[in-house]
Amino acid sequence: MRVAIIGLGLIGGSIGLALKQTNEPGWEIVGHVRHSEAASVALKVGAVDKVEMNLERAVREADLVIIATPVLTIKEILSRIADCLSPGCIVTDTASTKLEVMKWAEELLPPRVDFVGGHPMAGKETYGIQAVEAKLFQGSAYCLTPAKKTSPQAADKVANVVKKLGATPLFVDAQEHDNLVAGISHLPMLVSAALVSATSKDSSWGMMSKLAASGYRDLTRLASGNPEVNAHICLTNRQAIIHWIDEFSKELARYRQLVDVGNKDLEEALAEANKARQEWLNET
Amino acid sequence: MRVAIIGLGLIGGSIGLALKQTNEPGWEIVGHVRHSEAASVALKVGAVDKVEMNLERAVREADLVIIATPVLTIKEILSRIADCLSPGCIVTDTASTKLEVMKWAEELLPPRVDFVGGHPMAGKETYGIQAVEAKLFQGSAYCLTPAKKTSPQAADKVANVVKKLGATPLFVDAQEHDNLVAGISHLPMLVSAALVSATSKDSSWGMMSKLAASGYRDLTRLASGNPEVNAHICLTNRQAIIHWIDEFSKELARYRQLVDVGNKDLEEALAEANKARQEWLNET
Repeated sequence: MRVAIIGLGLIGGSIGLALKQTNEPGWEIVGHVRHSEAASVALKVGAVDKVEMNLERAVREADLVIIATPVLTIKEILSRIADCLSPGCIVTDTASTKLEVMKWAEELLPPRVDFVGGHPMAGKETYGIQAVEAKLFQGSAYCLTPAKKTSPQAADKVANVVKKLGATPLFVDAQEHDNLVAGISHLPMLVSAALVSATSKDSSWGMMSKLAASGYRDLTRLASGNPEVNAHICLTNRQAIIHWIDEFSKELARYRQLVDVGNKDLEEALAEANKARQEWLNET
Repeated sequence: MRVAIIGLGLIGGSIGLALKQTNEPGWEIVGHVRHSEAASVALKVGAVDKVEMNLERAVREADLVIIATPVLTIKEILSRIADCLSPGCIVTDTASTKLEVMKWAEELLPPRVDFVGGHPMAGKETYGIQAVEAKLFQGSAYCLTPAKKTSPQAADKVANVVKKLGATPLFVDAQEHDNLVAGISHLPMLVSAALVSATSKDSSWGMMSKLAASGYRDLTRLASGNPEVNAHICLTNRQAIIHWIDEFSKELARYRQLVDVGNKDLEEALAEANKARQEWLNET
């Protein structure tokens, strides 16, 4: 079994590390990355068995190709690797948006290969190959979006690889996926960035920054994500994200109104939010 | 040295625990709390030397009174304890807003006592006496707002107690304090609550809640704060909070516009926010 991982950032590198640590007999993990520095680190931390700096050679004879690059780069990668893929090869990706990726795969990949979209619901504050963790996916959900023409066997194979990472595969329609993650992932990321922008540009930031503590740190964590990756996500899920910004803005306007009026209703609204979050915590 | 702590929630209880663990010779920590359950837990975890369920008796002969209750309850507490305080007693509080508290203290406390407003910049996801931690304040800032008529000696004494908690005292004007924390603490709390409200009320929440992961968890942490405490904070800092909601909304609208237009400017904006947060992390 030959696995080619295209892109060795936090996600690609962590997938390689996790798969290598399962010690599957006969598996070979080949990594492709543009920068030779990242290649050295990937080899040093044991995220891959070898690095192949040529993209086409990296995927040749692979049984499974995992594309773990910023989503807007996937189209070109698919078009470049299409002719080099062996019959029966399965291609998957790790992008946070799925609808555009599914369209590109359908348009660009030959019938002899299967495509299964993928999105691990895991992340951390830092990124890049230096941040890799074999346990990054342990206990987390991992969305899979097979195409209509994907063979059930191919979808099962990818689901089995996901289980080897310690994650739980969750089959979901690509459009539904994009709508859902816009609310619980892309909106929070933009809210986090807007919070940093609003506060850090203010004339009182010098003093404010000294008082900012763990609450500010948590609320702004997603603003520390990879700007390229996050911009690509937003640009491939614009409609759903705009819908969610508007829904959020309505709620914030409601809280603003409650603060302005200044009666007990504010406490009730905060108690409701507190309860809803507690229920979510209890379920997860 | 007799210290009376009024209110044994996360903050009051943690102050008691921290002071007890410094083993100051001759110090006695008396706690006052309304609920007998909290009183038992406070004694059990060692947050206080004794509990006095009668408020007036709790502060009698105290050298230092620390009021750690929701901010809107402080006015009544000050008016009830005013006649019971010994000459030379110092009174402080731990509320997240300071201007109103300073007005009440000036209006209600007799000239024989000194008032120094206080606000520890520390917290955690859970609250109540069960959540107390002796190290809660370690390494964090602790705002102090002496009144104009407060003696420098009294301000120094409170600053020394703050140091015993492991925190760094930071003298600041009450109005300035309220404006600053509105941006880095009260705004984030309302943003967090609005994010929970917007997502958890949506018809797709059943499925979304399964995908929500660590990013959503961090962004919504402040929504799990004590609703009564948070409502009181908002109602005593309405103008500054509304100003900050409006500043934040402008930034979010800017990001919405960048997503809508859909070009490279979005990545630049995200990179700027990433950089600003990194600079803040480097400073703290």
